[in-house]
Amino acid sequence: MKDKTFLMIPGPTPVPESVLLEIAKHPIGHRSSEFSSILEEVYTNLKYVFQTENDVFMFTSSGTGAMCAALENLINEGDKVLSLVIGNFGNRWAKIAESRGAIVEKIEVEAGDVINPEVLKKRLAEDVNKEIKIVTLTHSETSTGAANDIKTLCSIIKEHGALSVVDGVTSVCAMPCKPDEWGIDVLVSGSQKGFMIPPGLAFLVANEKAWKVYEQCKHPGFYFDWAAHRKSVRANSTPFTPAVNLIAGLNVALKMIKEEGIDNMNARHRRHAMALRAALRAINLKLLVENDENASYAITSILPPDGITVPDIRKTLQKDYDIVVANGQNQLKDRIFRMGTLGFVCDRDLIASVGALEATLLKLGHKFELGAGVKTLITELNKGN
Amino acid sequence: MKDKTFLMIPGPTPVPESVLLEIAKHPIGHRSSEFSSILEEVYTNLKYVFQTENDVFMFTSSGTGAMCAALENLINEGDKVLSLVIGNFGNRWAKIAESRGAIVEKIEVEAGDVINPEVLKKRLAEDVNKEIKIVTLTHSETSTGAANDIKTLCSIIKEHGALSVVDGVTSVCAMPCKPDEWGIDVLVSGSQKGFMIPPGLAFLVANEKAWKVYEQCKHPGFYFDWAAHRKSVRANSTPFTPAVNLIAGLNVALKMIKEEGIDNMNARHRRHAMALRAALRAINLKLLVENDENASYAITSILPPDGITVPDIRKTLQKDYDIVVANGQNQLKDRIFRMGTLGFVCDRDLIASVGALEATLLKLGHKFELGAGVKTLITELNKGN
Repeated sequence: MKDKTFLMIPGPTPVPESVLLEIAKHPIGHRSSEFSSILEEVYTNLKYVFQTENDVFMFTSSGTGAMCAALENLINEGDKVLSLVIGNFGNRWAKIAESRGAIVEKIEVEAGDVINPEVLKKRLAEDVNKEIKIVTLTHSETSTGAANDIKTLCSIIKEHGALSVVDGVTSVCAMPCKPDEWGIDVLVSGSQKGFMIPPGLAFLVANEKAWKVYEQCKHPGFYFDWAAHRKSVRANSTPFTPAVNLIAGLNVALKMIKEEGIDNMNARHRRHAMALRAALRAINLKLLVENDENASYAITSILPPDGITVPDIRKTLQKDYDIVVANGQNQLKDRIFRMGTLGFVCDRDLIASVGALEATLLKLGHKFELGAGVKTLITELNKGN
Repeated sequence: MKDKTFLMIPGPTPVPESVLLEIAKHPIGHRSSEFSSILEEVYTNLKYVFQTENDVFMFTSSGTGAMCAALENLINEGDKVLSLVIGNFGNRWAKIAESRGAIVEKIEVEAGDVINPEVLKKRLAEDVNKEIKIVTLTHSETSTGAANDIKTLCSIIKEHGALSVVDGVTSVCAMPCKPDEWGIDVLVSGSQKGFMIPPGLAFLVANEKAWKVYEQCKHPGFYFDWAAHRKSVRANSTPFTPAVNLIAGLNVALKMIKEEGIDNMNARHRRHAMALRAALRAINLKLLVENDENASYAITSILPPDGITVPDIRKTLQKDYDIVVANGQNQLKDRIFRMGTLGFVCDRDLIASVGALEATLLKLGHKFELGAGVKTLITELNKGN
């Protein structure tokens, strides 16, 4: 059906109409006092969402731009970086570090698994000469739906003395993520995720410890330069012409987030993800991340039942029910499909999705008790956990 | 008056409603076949606008992002770069080159002047050991409204053997700019200019000669990496999640440009800029760029009359007539004001602006013949030159 598509992918995510209408307004001058007032609100509310006292930088870019903005302002050629890889986006950190001339060591796990804090602790304990300068890690791994225990991992990194650089692209807004409280040194995120606006903006917050490393960086970025952005944030400005329409939309979205409350928003995502997981199990589906403790609240990866293919499930969901879910990436392509529950998602969306998935699986010949998914979902949602 | 603001700044520029409404639609998945079809049209039409057979890369970024995308994929530490500086944006090339560790030499001129081809020819002739690897230059200098003779300058650079890297941020769409025909090795532009969409996208086209230099680059960019973008363009895709809403808007805008015809669009800008210049002179205003031959078709810089300040002119134009013109930048602040005639601008907009400027100057006590500006403007527009 035309204009009825509902995105259940890990980004872009659904956008409120009030945000879309704001984005549709004629652009205003980026050096006007009107835009400066918008930026002032945006920068203030970003600090609220990121739960930080530090400045939050905003880039006109994809989330990957913010990842580059993190590493290209920290790494000198030959620096040693430890990348904790639990999926594609963890691996992206390693690639970016290598592109800056770093020597990268990886700790990798199977798809769906997370980093064992003890393994990290052991590796860092071996680094007696403190050669490892930066540890990169992923909070919610978009390619698998697994989520690291960032709080514990960052405390281990802090103890060692290296800098923790965290991908919070799909976690900020969806999962508790407290850079100041947890000692995350650099945290990045993207707009088309929990922020409920279309793609095109990305964010970075760095603490004083990270700034000290920045000051030693021989060739920091220009477009993504931290010093230029800090100066601009403090003047309610931007160093270059930003995506003014998206920022006007972000201003509306941030007010919605503040109204809901960041803790409530995290809780809503937890409640949705856990109820969805229970519902999926109730219709005999296997989850890539088996342990609820390791599950992202933003994205859930599901294995197709025997004899039914991922492309068939995706095609039927889209054709019959106008719901888009994501395929797996790279080696997980056609081995999993991924349902996003990120950002502007309500209980009704979950009910529709689980119901539509049941109808899809019925059509494709899966064996399960029709209605069990929706029943479990509603029961779990009502528990309110 | 609320919602009546008309932007006559060099960017953001006015955006057609059909484009705004397209941007306001719910985002679609960036890996969907629907979006791939949009990208196919966009990439094809970008080649038309850039008048090139080479791939045109699209970045989710400000125009400055594309400038970084040019130099960070070409420069190794210690490379020699010659920057031809006719204003702030020419100087930005130099800063970006320095941020990559290049040794930068500048040829600078007074604000409003352009590069004398003979001066460049002489300097390059002295470089007998071909130490200069890259020459950066600006087509239409947004900070002054002067425009270099890119065709001649690039032919001189080509003869020497260095790479020409051209800022076409405010020139592409507004002025003839033919990278293939003129031997421009790398050309960049931005979306919020002649492309008639809001800021957030930027473009780059590189020829085979530039690719050979890219291949020698030790640490090319990651977010802005050319190889990743070439691979994506050829698959009607993007390497990272792009600003899908802005791209959907761009698709509409590019079709409008194609319908008008790029030569006609250039001619419209020339006609507008030249008529505006004549009209401004008719009301006793002095132009920063005195010679029409050196004038940008996108932006005109005007000196305030004696005893009248730039802030007063800008304030009155905005308050009484809802027209926003730009101040000068840096050392030109309050010494000039700048009127943009870039992108989605029609004859009526020019008439309104010149009329409103006359009314403003009358109020502020400037001595001139009321009506002379609009009279000259209409006469010149009617000549159709």
